[in-house]
Amino acid sequence: MSREREFQAVTQALGYDFNGELQKGGNYTPWVRHGNQVYVSGQLPRVGSEIMVTGHVGTEVTLARAQLAARICVLRALALLRQLPGGLDAVHCIPRMTVYVQAAAGFTQLSEVADGASEVLWRVLGEAGAHTRTAIGVAQLPKNGAVELDLIAAVD
Amino acid sequence: MSREREFQAVTQALGYDFNGELQKGGNYTPWVRHGNQVYVSGQLPRVGSEIMVTGHVGTEVTLARAQLAARICVLRALALLRQLPGGLDAVHCIPRMTVYVQAAAGFTQLSEVADGASEVLWRVLGEAGAHTRTAIGVAQLPKNGAVELDLIAAVD
Amino acid sequence: MSREREFQAVTQALGYDFNGELQKGGNYTPWVRHGNQVYVSGQLPRVGSEIMVTGHVGTEVTLARAQLAARICVLRALALLRQLPGGLDAVHCIPRMTVYVQAAAGFTQLSEVADGASEVLWRVLGEAGAHTRTAIGVAQLPKNGAVELDLIAAVD
Repeated sequence: MSREREFQAVTQALGYDFNGELQKGGNYTPWVRHGNQVYVSGQLPRVGSEIMVTGHVGTEVTLARAQLAARICVLRALALLRQLPGGLDAVHCIPRMTVYVQAAAGFTQLSEVADGASEVLWRVLGEAGAHTRTAIGVAQLPKNGAVELDLIAAVD
Repeated sequence: MSREREFQAVTQALGYDFNGELQKGGNYTPWVRHGNQVYVSGQLPRVGSEIMVTGHVGTEVTLARAQLAARICVLRALALLRQLPGGLDAVHCIPRMTVYVQAAAGFTQLSEVADGASEVLWRVLGEAGAHTRTAIGVAQLPKNGAVELDLIAAVD
Repeated sequence: MSREREFQAVTQALGYDFNGELQKGGNYTPWVRHGNQVYVSGQLPRVGSEIMVTGHVGTEVTLARAQLAARICVLRALALLRQLPGGLDAVHCIPRMTVYVQAAAGFTQLSEVADGASEVLWRVLGEAGAHTRTAIGVAQLPKNGAVELDLIAAVD
């Protein structure tokens, strides 16, 4: 199945739609291309104008919900990469993904949260989903989002 | 108005001076150029040897003061880019800026803090101020600084 | 002394061994090369399957132990770079290193923790150890590690 169809299959299974312009939260640019790298701004688990998963993971938010949040964040990043000439097929690999988890005291399953995003990359991009990753637990995220992530994509 | 004059206008309006060598806090390099990218180390809101805005944002520090801190951080980054051959005119865009806010529990206006830095980029660099951004709230920053930021600049 | 021998000298002085495959904590790739940059995933202070330094720095973990943790993290990153064609000799510089410290409330000596990693880069790589750096204090790290770091290496 093509990357575009995998992307559609994952988003439809979740019941979300990431077509059209994606809302952002400040005076910046959703992505910047420099040479053959595309930098994607930090993505919250937002669908339309609503942050779908808010609160601190480990108390207000379960691991499963945090993994869902991570999936939404990375689907937003992929939705932005779809806007490139060539769409998702132009992606070679993901040199860096950083996953920020709004973590309650004592919650250390940050890698497990980030795996929610990693699995989407592998599923949609196949071998081109190869990525390095850093997962950390932070005090607060914008709009009380449970997860935020950014990434760099290598493109044709 | 040229970028250099905009930079001077913004710093003079704040009453600060970022000429000369900028103090740093450890055994690292202020910036590294690799190919046509310049990586700038994490900048605190330091003027001379003093951190101008310290404490946690949301309790000890107001949003307005945190935005000032973000402005100082990004001006320091621009002051380093001025040292390049070609100065600020060599900058094409800012592929990545990451803004770390030392946030009190429950303070979620992290994007609003980061807008303080974004506005400086747009004002000084014009269209070349285009940047992706990630804003997060962290537990502690070096020297109790209220904000820290780093960035990557694309240059000629 | 060659970089490889310096690497061996530092690891032997610490009493650790970073040969063989390095365990990782999720569904990602230890490093990704794109053009002449190698992105290294977030490294915990892990030797074999054990995280050597756990807990929050400032209360459960001393500055000296946190610096040890930072050394282990960066040695793991260098151990991955050794797997490249050309080994450590292929490294030109380290455009970015980000050091995440699991910090207790009020612990602000984050630059001092990060210096533990910076010193290893300078010792092993000499002038090619030139690096930009960002050090921040975060709420939680995976597996309760005291420090995590990632980096980008510029290579031949």
